[in-house]
Amino acid sequence: MPPLAQRLDTPDTSHTKEWLRYYQRVRAATETICAPLHIEDYMVQSMPDVSPPKWHIAHVSWFFEAFILKPYHPSYRTLDPAYDYLFNSYYETHGTPFPRPDRGMISRPTVDDVYRYRAHIDRAMEELLIDPPQEYLPEILHRLELGLPHEQQHQELLFMDIKHILAQNPLCPAYRDDLSPPPAHEVGELGWHAYPAGVRHIGHDETDKSFAYDNEMGRHRQFVEAFQIADRPVTNGEFLRFMEAGGYDKPDYWLSDGWATVKAEGWKAPLYWVERDGIWHHYTLGGLVPVDMNAPVCHVSFYEADAYAQWAGARLPTEAEWETVARDMPMQGNFVEQDHLQPVAIAPATSTEIPGQMFGDVWEWTGSAYRPYPGFRKLPGSLGEYNGKFMSGQMVLRGGCCATPADHIRATYRNFFPPHARWAFSGFRLAREACA
Amino acid sequence: MPPLAQRLDTPDTSHTKEWLRYYQRVRAATETICAPLHIEDYMVQSMPDVSPPKWHIAHVSWFFEAFILKPYHPSYRTLDPAYDYLFNSYYETHGTPFPRPDRGMISRPTVDDVYRYRAHIDRAMEELLIDPPQEYLPEILHRLELGLPHEQQHQELLFMDIKHILAQNPLCPAYRDDLSPPPAHEVGELGWHAYPAGVRHIGHDETDKSFAYDNEMGRHRQFVEAFQIADRPVTNGEFLRFMEAGGYDKPDYWLSDGWATVKAEGWKAPLYWVERDGIWHHYTLGGLVPVDMNAPVCHVSFYEADAYAQWAGARLPTEAEWETVARDMPMQGNFVEQDHLQPVAIAPATSTEIPGQMFGDVWEWTGSAYRPYPGFRKLPGSLGEYNGKFMSGQMVLRGGCCATPADHIRATYRNFFPPHARWAFSGFRLAREACA
Amino acid sequence: MPPLAQRLDTPDTSHTKEWLRYYQRVRAATETICAPLHIEDYMVQSMPDVSPPKWHIAHVSWFFEAFILKPYHPSYRTLDPAYDYLFNSYYETHGTPFPRPDRGMISRPTVDDVYRYRAHIDRAMEELLIDPPQEYLPEILHRLELGLPHEQQHQELLFMDIKHILAQNPLCPAYRDDLSPPPAHEVGELGWHAYPAGVRHIGHDETDKSFAYDNEMGRHRQFVEAFQIADRPVTNGEFLRFMEAGGYDKPDYWLSDGWATVKAEGWKAPLYWVERDGIWHHYTLGGLVPVDMNAPVCHVSFYEADAYAQWAGARLPTEAEWETVARDMPMQGNFVEQDHLQPVAIAPATSTEIPGQMFGDVWEWTGSAYRPYPGFRKLPGSLGEYNGKFMSGQMVLRGGCCATPADHIRATYRNFFPPHARWAFSGFRLAREACA
Amino acid sequence: MPPLAQRLDTPDTSHTKEWLRYYQRVRAATETICAPLHIEDYMVQSMPDVSPPKWHIAHVSWFFEAFILKPYHPSYRTLDPAYDYLFNSYYETHGTPFPRPDRGMISRPTVDDVYRYRAHIDRAMEELLIDPPQEYLPEILHRLELGLPHEQQHQELLFMDIKHILAQNPLCPAYRDDLSPPPAHEVGELGWHAYPAGVRHIGHDETDKSFAYDNEMGRHRQFVEAFQIADRPVTNGEFLRFMEAGGYDKPDYWLSDGWATVKAEGWKAPLYWVERDGIWHHYTLGGLVPVDMNAPVCHVSFYEADAYAQWAGARLPTEAEWETVARDMPMQGNFVEQDHLQPVAIAPATSTEIPGQMFGDVWEWTGSAYRPYPGFRKLPGSLGEYNGKFMSGQMVLRGGCCATPADHIRATYRNFFPPHARWAFSGFRLAREACA
Repeated sequence: MPPLAQRLDTPDTSHTKEWLRYYQRVRAATETICAPLHIEDYMVQSMPDVSPPKWHIAHVSWFFEAFILKPYHPSYRTLDPAYDYLFNSYYETHGTPFPRPDRGMISRPTVDDVYRYRAHIDRAMEELLIDPPQEYLPEILHRLELGLPHEQQHQELLFMDIKHILAQNPLCPAYRDDLSPPPAHEVGELGWHAYPAGVRHIGHDETDKSFAYDNEMGRHRQFVEAFQIADRPVTNGEFLRFMEAGGYDKPDYWLSDGWATVKAEGWKAPLYWVERDGIWHHYTLGGLVPVDMNAPVCHVSFYEADAYAQWAGARLPTEAEWETVARDMPMQGNFVEQDHLQPVAIAPATSTEIPGQMFGDVWEWTGSAYRPYPGFRKLPGSLGEYNGKFMSGQMVLRGGCCATPADHIRATYRNFFPPHARWAFSGFRLAREACA
Repeated sequence: MPPLAQRLDTPDTSHTKEWLRYYQRVRAATETICAPLHIEDYMVQSMPDVSPPKWHIAHVSWFFEAFILKPYHPSYRTLDPAYDYLFNSYYETHGTPFPRPDRGMISRPTVDDVYRYRAHIDRAMEELLIDPPQEYLPEILHRLELGLPHEQQHQELLFMDIKHILAQNPLCPAYRDDLSPPPAHEVGELGWHAYPAGVRHIGHDETDKSFAYDNEMGRHRQFVEAFQIADRPVTNGEFLRFMEAGGYDKPDYWLSDGWATVKAEGWKAPLYWVERDGIWHHYTLGGLVPVDMNAPVCHVSFYEADAYAQWAGARLPTEAEWETVARDMPMQGNFVEQDHLQPVAIAPATSTEIPGQMFGDVWEWTGSAYRPYPGFRKLPGSLGEYNGKFMSGQMVLRGGCCATPADHIRATYRNFFPPHARWAFSGFRLAREACA
Repeated sequence: MPPLAQRLDTPDTSHTKEWLRYYQRVRAATETICAPLHIEDYMVQSMPDVSPPKWHIAHVSWFFEAFILKPYHPSYRTLDPAYDYLFNSYYETHGTPFPRPDRGMISRPTVDDVYRYRAHIDRAMEELLIDPPQEYLPEILHRLELGLPHEQQHQELLFMDIKHILAQNPLCPAYRDDLSPPPAHEVGELGWHAYPAGVRHIGHDETDKSFAYDNEMGRHRQFVEAFQIADRPVTNGEFLRFMEAGGYDKPDYWLSDGWATVKAEGWKAPLYWVERDGIWHHYTLGGLVPVDMNAPVCHVSFYEADAYAQWAGARLPTEAEWETVARDMPMQGNFVEQDHLQPVAIAPATSTEIPGQMFGDVWEWTGSAYRPYPGFRKLPGSLGEYNGKFMSGQMVLRGGCCATPADHIRATYRNFFPPHARWAFSGFRLAREACA
Repeated sequence: MPPLAQRLDTPDTSHTKEWLRYYQRVRAATETICAPLHIEDYMVQSMPDVSPPKWHIAHVSWFFEAFILKPYHPSYRTLDPAYDYLFNSYYETHGTPFPRPDRGMISRPTVDDVYRYRAHIDRAMEELLIDPPQEYLPEILHRLELGLPHEQQHQELLFMDIKHILAQNPLCPAYRDDLSPPPAHEVGELGWHAYPAGVRHIGHDETDKSFAYDNEMGRHRQFVEAFQIADRPVTNGEFLRFMEAGGYDKPDYWLSDGWATVKAEGWKAPLYWVERDGIWHHYTLGGLVPVDMNAPVCHVSFYEADAYAQWAGARLPTEAEWETVARDMPMQGNFVEQDHLQPVAIAPATSTEIPGQMFGDVWEWTGSAYRPYPGFRKLPGSLGEYNGKFMSGQMVLRGGCCATPADHIRATYRNFFPPHARWAFSGFRLAREACA
């Protein structure tokens, strides 16, 4: 993917054909994700945080229309002016967005209409990229460089949302019944890797020309005290021991907000877990299956991760610690391309030298609140709402998961969710002081 | 419809073929109502009171399965045991129903699946009615006699719910664009009809053999003091004068709960009214159109009806008064068969002798709370939940509306909604004391 | 009390001294009720329906100020203009009232200030009644005739609210420890009294000159079918059998709204009941004591009364039935003057000829929704808000209770509460069809 | 205060008389704060975050009882065992605390009772400190060293809560009318102070023997990039310009959660601001007065501080930056001892060399989420709940305010509130990048 090797200021305008192929590849991936859906599945908004799949596939198209086609395509004509209102997600400065919790209330445009809208956008984007107006090309490519990761983020959201939607159904329907079966591995005792104290460079290196989000800029120094980090995420089996030790019943281990949430929501186990005939099962995109005790625990909130760490006499790593560990590691793992769509047990041999499963499987909750780096600057205009305005009330997660495209992730990538959220593929890894 | 001329205790078992034709006619009407819908429309639950059309068409079929086929069809096999849970509406004693507000969360079974379920039920019902087990035939016909009006009630609910669903959409899509156009009539000043005091027989006469719901039984005596009743419902034009007189701004005319609702909901006009360029429009099943000032006002709550009456120096009729007036009138009016699907202005000549528009056009709010008649008895078993358990917190409406099948209505028919509900085709008519 | 023997249109203006004594007696009774309170007790608003006692004692004074002193006292000067805003209860047309749920937020004026305000009003009222402006005297007496029962209603509310306030306290403090001890009686099996069908005159007879509220006017005819009524209210012992039969666990007996309330609120017993060491106790104004199984059950909602009646194969009486029974009975019973402040077991001999405990002990839920009588007219001006605007969503209770002043009650008296309310001294009596 | 010069591990056990005097001084200060209150004022809980003053004065006493007297006083007898339940604040591991939002529901024990309880505790504490059991003395002093700052925190909370309580009252009563009048200063344009990049030691230095909370431990290194900080907090006049520029009307400057809060709460100005006759006033503990445009803005949330900073092209300082600036500054400012009880304008000469008003006046919102320092360890037992369990969802504030005792504050002191909270004396100061 050469164009992505170029940095935001000067995307390589000589390779627009490669950009076009990249565009087509990302757009096709979205449609592949939706292929197993019935029209009915496209319509459901199972909670305010979830969007109906129909909305996702329209919104990612709207992004290209609003930010690229309308300003830069010389002859672009919109299919329906109402779509601008319906499929704006949260760009308040672009105009009042349609209320998020009501996205499931809108039956028209239909799914077919929305696919026609996608095709309309794709044709126009192809026209634009085949014969771009040269004076705007750098800006077009900048925006494309943002729009395609944006669509990849929605691909992962589609997996999260489809899972949540189908899980509402007492029939537990599978999204797909041909997923790649998870490998069976016996996972050993947790091991630790130690890192010395020192000044670390954190954040995206803007000199290396590759793309990163605004929230990964700018690279800066942090002093990271000596610490140790676990050689793999906490497993379902380990988490079950916490549950069996009364983890959800005692306030001792919990943050105050976490304990209030446990009581208000009646949490007794990770999301999607259900006991059947004395055996813990969980709902996966392949249907309801027994929990693999060797796989990383998933669909836990920050509160549960933090309580487990308290119980285990450890803590969550900060995002600077995590990035220190991950910085020079190969970007390999159980990503969407492995087609498991769930975290799997780590293979025995891979974890001796360096911590395993840093990338893929589960997003790892860190102990760091999501706040701007020193020198953070918002993008200009409505795109400035992309990341910055969410910088309160959320915690950082790192490393990507089993539903993340491999080429979407980076060691500096900062994902974020509120501390109570559980519908992402979120797990965690322990850390502790150097001397512990 | 001869069989319906028979009463509940002894439905005419010799005419099962006519019952079968009646069954087929009612079932077909439901599908005709849904014909203009897209699959997406079937999925929306726009508020907890609304059910997705998919749920309606499944639930009315489930009624026949649960109460007739399973107990009385000798070889009936269900299509899917989960449907019993999913499509039970509120029969708590039949088993815990699936939570009502979550009906829009269930994408599977799909709309196609549900139509297959309907066809499966229809085939079995036809088998049963062609060759019924004679020992159970009276009970089968009793239940059929209830199940078919039940489906007709859901036909009207379908119109109400489809209207509410499509009205959420800022695009204001029409349900149908080929509705029968409303006639244009100039409606004159309100006139009054006087009725003397006396003992009246109220409720369904069980000796006349025709069907009626449990809540219309048993016939009893009420003393009705002398009163006057208006010769037609209040019109949009009259209601607009109330609005222009500050009706929604002053507490003087309102019940306490009504005023609290006005403030909490921000009501400024009937449901579906919207001002465009200084002209009041309202959303109809044919799309957004200017309000016909001569047609009865519709989609108002009991609170609004009562406040208007206070403002106008009148009151709403009691249900006994309404029934006294309607008892011997011909059952004619603007019903679903007229295919307007909205109330229309009354024709000039029709209202001189007797009050006009008593049947059809709009359900008329009465001043009577929905409570049991003396001697009311619930049906046995789960069917006992049909009407009786709703006898608190609701007000009685009378006369049917533009979405009611003509053969579904009676002078004794008691409809009911909570006083704040507005999504039914509900309007009202004034009454006053004899000496006023 | 001769003046009260006069009717609203022409109160006897020649007996203003008697009116003054009546005024002083009612006002003193309010202060006697509050005598056992600490200043802290005056400040608590334990739920939005409850008002702090400080507010009650100010509001009843405000009523005389707003409706009598300001319009008719030639030289009246208010103590503090802000009180008009703070102590208006719900007269929206008199000016926006201070928000009801925030009444507990206002520490100033202090309790001492409020008693000063009372004394200020009392002095002015005494001046006015000793030397009244003759041209306004009839209207002054009309308003006094309303203002004194109004204060008596608040006396009962004070008992209800003080009980609710102190019951919040885990220490279960007694309001008074010198209450009159309840008699011990063994209550026998329930008996029934039969009444024939016929036209009844219902409501206050305006020709008899005694006072009644607007909602008891005007007298009219109702046809009451033959019925039977129980010879006493349902007892705690009987209600406990309902509980032990799973009454709170099965939806079968409940109205739909009632069952939803049971589940939402977690009701398992009447309000104030608590099990201690296997024995049911309840909180009374004398503290926590074992439940007397022979006393009428109290602090139950309409929903619970109705469910019990369903379970017992009976129903609640309508208010017309209740009034038919009570009309000619002597006005005797366990009222506030008995100083039990709780319902007590009926004495054996009293119930053979006529139904017992019709007056006093517990307000009896009827099966009638609170709606206007034919010909109901609101009082003019803000006083028109006194009763009429509450005529939706509430049920009628009859007969007064152990906290009602004996001279406050009448056979035609219509009390009303929402069907879920339990903090009034509310119980119930069964009725059934004549032939049952 | 020599004892406080000793560190937590080894408080100087030879100076127990000085500890006793310190105890008496802090306890007396609490009572002085409450002296102007009426009993009624002690009872109000104006929002769930606010506690009734009665609860505060009991709870701070309970702390000494639960954590010192019961474990270490050889003959201590509690006054009432129920108080342990009623006045535990949030120590879940100590036993279920009485529900916080219901603290205003409890009228007994009365205020007098609670003062008796205080006196009882004080007598026992004096006994204990005059003749302490030597083997427990170090632990007793450790806990005293925590219990006295704990009471000082509640002194500040009392000011916050009393202000909020009295502000509910439309009469705007003053808490005191003899407060020290604020000086009148004309404040000039904002200036900036620059600090170079470098590794900083952050947190309490445990070798210096003085007291600090657990959340200030342990001292660690942070790399702080070069930055600039404003020479004083933002003033009311500056904040008014933000308001006049539409600051509360445009989403552009706001965090997403902040904008949602602005809309939900209808915020248009800082808490306690109200426009009267075109002039902005605000409610102070001295009553309603015109806003001093030269004084620091106060009672703003983190959201408002952050939005102002965005609008002004700046940002909030991190807590490490703030501590870097404050570390070596003299601990002087407008504290509770100045007896203004509101922030005041800075005197002209004081701000040239170093930033002014770092201590006192207003707590300054930082841009840092409240999370544990590296190596943070909870105190053992229930005291471990003191600070650690609140480490999610809150932001750090620094520097103390006009209601903070001067000897309570430190450069390392970390206060924290949720980002929407406004009832603390919270303002803010701007920072920016070095090169800005």
